[in-house]
Amino acid sequence: MKKSFLSDNFLLHSETAERLYFDFAKEMPIIDYHNHLPPDQIANNHRFDTVTSAWLNGDHYKWRAMRANGVNEKFVTGTAGDYEKFEKWMETLPYTLRNPLYHWSHMEMQRYFGVHDVLNKTNSSTIYETCNSLLSSSSHHVHGLLGMMNVRVVCTTDDPADSLEHHIAHQKASKEVVKMLPSFRPDKYILIDHPQYKTHIDRLSTVVNKPLNSFDDLVTALTERASFFNSLGCRASDHGLEYISASSYTDSEIKSIYTKALHGENISHEEAEKFKSALLYHLGIIYHTLGWAQQFHLGALRNNNQRALRTLGPDTGWDSIGDWPQAINLSRHLGKLDNEDKLTKTIIYNLNPADNEMMATMIGNFNDGSMKGKIQFGSGWWFLDQKDGMEKQINTLSNMGLISRFIGMLTDSRSFLSFPRHEYFRRILCNIFGNEIEKGELPSDIDWVGKIIQDICYNNVEEYFGMNNLFSNR
Amino acid sequence: MKKSFLSDNFLLHSETAERLYFDFAKEMPIIDYHNHLPPDQIANNHRFDTVTSAWLNGDHYKWRAMRANGVNEKFVTGTAGDYEKFEKWMETLPYTLRNPLYHWSHMEMQRYFGVHDVLNKTNSSTIYETCNSLLSSSSHHVHGLLGMMNVRVVCTTDDPADSLEHHIAHQKASKEVVKMLPSFRPDKYILIDHPQYKTHIDRLSTVVNKPLNSFDDLVTALTERASFFNSLGCRASDHGLEYISASSYTDSEIKSIYTKALHGENISHEEAEKFKSALLYHLGIIYHTLGWAQQFHLGALRNNNQRALRTLGPDTGWDSIGDWPQAINLSRHLGKLDNEDKLTKTIIYNLNPADNEMMATMIGNFNDGSMKGKIQFGSGWWFLDQKDGMEKQINTLSNMGLISRFIGMLTDSRSFLSFPRHEYFRRILCNIFGNEIEKGELPSDIDWVGKIIQDICYNNVEEYFGMNNLFSNR
Amino acid sequence: MKKSFLSDNFLLHSETAERLYFDFAKEMPIIDYHNHLPPDQIANNHRFDTVTSAWLNGDHYKWRAMRANGVNEKFVTGTAGDYEKFEKWMETLPYTLRNPLYHWSHMEMQRYFGVHDVLNKTNSSTIYETCNSLLSSSSHHVHGLLGMMNVRVVCTTDDPADSLEHHIAHQKASKEVVKMLPSFRPDKYILIDHPQYKTHIDRLSTVVNKPLNSFDDLVTALTERASFFNSLGCRASDHGLEYISASSYTDSEIKSIYTKALHGENISHEEAEKFKSALLYHLGIIYHTLGWAQQFHLGALRNNNQRALRTLGPDTGWDSIGDWPQAINLSRHLGKLDNEDKLTKTIIYNLNPADNEMMATMIGNFNDGSMKGKIQFGSGWWFLDQKDGMEKQINTLSNMGLISRFIGMLTDSRSFLSFPRHEYFRRILCNIFGNEIEKGELPSDIDWVGKIIQDICYNNVEEYFGMNNLFSNR
Repeated sequence: MKKSFLSDNFLLHSETAERLYFDFAKEMPIIDYHNHLPPDQIANNHRFDTVTSAWLNGDHYKWRAMRANGVNEKFVTGTAGDYEKFEKWMETLPYTLRNPLYHWSHMEMQRYFGVHDVLNKTNSSTIYETCNSLLSSSSHHVHGLLGMMNVRVVCTTDDPADSLEHHIAHQKASKEVVKMLPSFRPDKYILIDHPQYKTHIDRLSTVVNKPLNSFDDLVTALTERASFFNSLGCRASDHGLEYISASSYTDSEIKSIYTKALHGENISHEEAEKFKSALLYHLGIIYHTLGWAQQFHLGALRNNNQRALRTLGPDTGWDSIGDWPQAINLSRHLGKLDNEDKLTKTIIYNLNPADNEMMATMIGNFNDGSMKGKIQFGSGWWFLDQKDGMEKQINTLSNMGLISRFIGMLTDSRSFLSFPRHEYFRRILCNIFGNEIEKGELPSDIDWVGKIIQDICYNNVEEYFGMNNLFSNR
Repeated sequence: MKKSFLSDNFLLHSETAERLYFDFAKEMPIIDYHNHLPPDQIANNHRFDTVTSAWLNGDHYKWRAMRANGVNEKFVTGTAGDYEKFEKWMETLPYTLRNPLYHWSHMEMQRYFGVHDVLNKTNSSTIYETCNSLLSSSSHHVHGLLGMMNVRVVCTTDDPADSLEHHIAHQKASKEVVKMLPSFRPDKYILIDHPQYKTHIDRLSTVVNKPLNSFDDLVTALTERASFFNSLGCRASDHGLEYISASSYTDSEIKSIYTKALHGENISHEEAEKFKSALLYHLGIIYHTLGWAQQFHLGALRNNNQRALRTLGPDTGWDSIGDWPQAINLSRHLGKLDNEDKLTKTIIYNLNPADNEMMATMIGNFNDGSMKGKIQFGSGWWFLDQKDGMEKQINTLSNMGLISRFIGMLTDSRSFLSFPRHEYFRRILCNIFGNEIEKGELPSDIDWVGKIIQDICYNNVEEYFGMNNLFSNR
Repeated sequence: MKKSFLSDNFLLHSETAERLYFDFAKEMPIIDYHNHLPPDQIANNHRFDTVTSAWLNGDHYKWRAMRANGVNEKFVTGTAGDYEKFEKWMETLPYTLRNPLYHWSHMEMQRYFGVHDVLNKTNSSTIYETCNSLLSSSSHHVHGLLGMMNVRVVCTTDDPADSLEHHIAHQKASKEVVKMLPSFRPDKYILIDHPQYKTHIDRLSTVVNKPLNSFDDLVTALTERASFFNSLGCRASDHGLEYISASSYTDSEIKSIYTKALHGENISHEEAEKFKSALLYHLGIIYHTLGWAQQFHLGALRNNNQRALRTLGPDTGWDSIGDWPQAINLSRHLGKLDNEDKLTKTIIYNLNPADNEMMATMIGNFNDGSMKGKIQFGSGWWFLDQKDGMEKQINTLSNMGLISRFIGMLTDSRSFLSFPRHEYFRRILCNIFGNEIEKGELPSDIDWVGKIIQDICYNNVEEYFGMNNLFSNR
């Protein structure tokens, strides 16, 4: 009964769970349909100098853990050398036990580098050398790292003003290791109350080579950029919002609010809500026209630490979970588009697990029988991307909707070393189903349940985004 | 250790759980103290033509699942024939695995029709014929279906303007299979901001044969109807509200708001809140006078899909969970009545499980020692009426209050085939207690714990509603 | 596999859990860093006349249970004799099964009085005599009761106007059984909209022997009292608030609001919010200067039952869990202090478990690497102080932060008999870790995990509050 740490049957606590994982889930390829990987590093098959640059740089999960452990910022994002930073992380690692970082880090060291030690300060220098040595070999450049994990498609997250030059270059290359598709993230053009709003509009204006003097100009520019993204295989948009805005407004109000913002006038909270509501609506119609899926990541309370924001900038580990009401505006926004028969496929992710059940029932309001799983309750996101969070998302979706039609896991990550999280998810998924079969709560039809597992791991997402045509050579 | 699907000891994962279920819970009769069964079908001992009409018609749980599975509305609520609809449901059923529909449906086929197959499209036509054939026999008319499940009392949900003719007819019949009592649901007269408000008032006016020109007239009419309901054995009211309204108001404000509504004038949100607060207060006093229990079903966000509301009407599967603050108004409303010593027995049901702990502690504020379990935290409702939801409700109530004084399960259903949910609840309940006995977290006093189980399954609810006098022949 | 009730390995469901508990956790002493014990009874080594006075008086948990069980108030807080009250409680006890009271009560009877019976009415009189007899012996006076549980430090909760005479007396006594430190709870001076506000200010004015005519006077007085508390070893403040106030304000607004309050003028909600925000800010700076930890107990909805408040007063069992938004103001308040580099160590406790994940991520926004675990997510509080609540707090903190740096359990209790709750917590903690080791989700490094357990039980809290210097003789 006692198992050793991170053994082959890690997280698989029944024989049936093992069968489901090894016979069905393990070999399925990966479509990572939402992440924050840098397109240039994929296009250029980037080589990392050190394991620090591949594993710690940009990883605000690890940074938060180090700070909570009393590590000085010098060793987190500061001026310390790569080995010093690595060593501080290895010193912190044992204190992350029961945090997902503990499992993730061990799995990453095992899967990418063959390091099977229990990680701590004592083996820090040996591991540092081992990893660095491997990273210098082509097997561990970016294409190799993705190939090792059987990643077939990655969907990056891109600003509408982005040239997508790296996507173009990557797609032109004769032999693609992995497909890279852009995603459309127009947050900057929605957040009209942001101090840099005018700067963002100016940049977009330059890209489309037209003045954006009116709200109509803005919608036209975004439509044009969406069309460009679409020509490069984009299948999805993404929005990172505290909550959906869905106020009533008139077109003339929106025109006037936009003009005020361009003139640097102060935008009231009410005006901002109206503007966001209007632009989200128009974007929804663009997405519907293109047949994209729209993604909403809702509920992050960002940049809580002003001191850190000043010195380190955003996305450096000072964000947390907010507690806004979410239901009514989400219902209104989706309902308005649906009412005009212009609601596209939609994926909703919530950061506050207190919203799980609300979100999982919301999707049912707009599943209209036009396709399988049109509206999705997204996989455990950010702070919820751990065993408990995944289990709760899987169970809630099961209880409130159809887990069988779920499009499954994504990394949402900035790191090329985070793909074992798909394995983590698959083990948890198989364990849940396997356990229920053994308890007689599901029929012991391993082929049927195994097929459902494969659907959740891969088939559903391929079908949802219509990606089967990407792999003509299969 | 491995169990087969839906075996005798389904959901009973210890020997003690089995003992508790088989020796104590299983044979207890059922008082289904809140549901939406059609009174005419009970009075007339309705015979269903097909299993589709008995099992699928009106069942928005199944409809939502079919739509999420990509089934066209034609086969859900549309023009397709009964067998076509049944077949589409059987095709969808395997994809509902882990949803409560999967367990419920199999239990319903087993318990009512002796069908023990794993349900899917391949056995669709055989099962259809088997069920239809049984439904044509008197053993499977409505009285038979209720009798099979040992249902002793059902409490329907009725509009104050209802004639209750079917209740009267049923009670007059010489040989009653099951007692049918009405419940008083005055929502239509509370929701003053509803477009049809005046129509509802007019109907009530006709029934009481008096003009309802003033708020006092309305309260008098509702008092009169409540008295009529009481004469037919009514023991409870019911309210389906987003949240309790408990604003401050003056009597003259309320009079004036009511008059505005009758004149078709626009009612502001603030005015509606005041009016609802006032009428809920007056109703609370009526209930207290009659010694009824008042039920509050709080937190549903309804009719999210305007397109479906237009074409299919309400209660067709487009409702979900809302996320309003609930605590303060609930406290104010109950507190105001309690302060005047006019707070009647009360049952609170929440739809958002994020409110579980708040609700389960709220009841303790008004349990004043005047009776056992005066204020109840209701059983898992609607979307929460599944294994996880029931376990959470049971555990939360246990942690925050007295599970021993809980009045237990109800179907809240529109279907005569949903009574195995009582069995489902009882198995879950026995499993929880059995597990804790075996782990040494409860004393191994099977008689004592078995008695508590029987209380929760039946005795508490009989005592709570004072129904023992209904069964003089026992 | 089957275990008997409350056996030695109670709550320890694996061999590894047992090893962690018996070899590492069990013998650690206790620092109870937040409670409501009466300082005079500690200073005077109080002797309780009856088990009723030691065990039932002031215990609103038990009172609520009795009322929910239909026990008349006479036997709860009323005029009944001590034995009558005890008997009614013993009669109620079996009906509390699955409530924490059931485990707590049995543990308390076992640990303090050697009573190992399953508690119910039949053994009521024998147990009453046994307990009373023991309570009359010096082994069971207050110092004995604390000593039995290996309590090294208790931190009481005291009003800034308190003379702390009992703390002084206790510290002067030659042979201290337990250290008693005060904590600073200035709620009365923050809640400007309370009807007795002026009375509270007057009392403080008398204590500092200065008029408190201006807001500056008030801040000065509180600074002076904090300094006095500090001289007696105070290490922490505490605040019991519905939510943190963090409105914008100007100094002149605050001065004017304070003056209005002193003149008995009505304070608007907005004014109260501004005032509370300002005073919390100034207090935060005082705490930072002194190096204290500030504690926030957030989310209780108090005094719901006006009838009971009138007759019995506050803290008599009529409080419950509220559902206010908490995140933004908490972020603003901590962020403002942090921005000025004046954020002291902080412990946040939430009463609504729906806020668990939000709170557990909030602390990460202000863990700045300056020390280990600077901002703490507090242990399960009040209604959450039970097995499920503790497990959820432990798991949430593990998932979102570093459980290894957690300062662990406190009683928050008014009773000298509640210290077995530390044992309860430790067993639950060891069970969680032991279970994960056996499942291969943690390395089987019993010494390492055992050390983490000891840190959470004792070492972390000693270090957090800098209490090691208190025990020079060790």
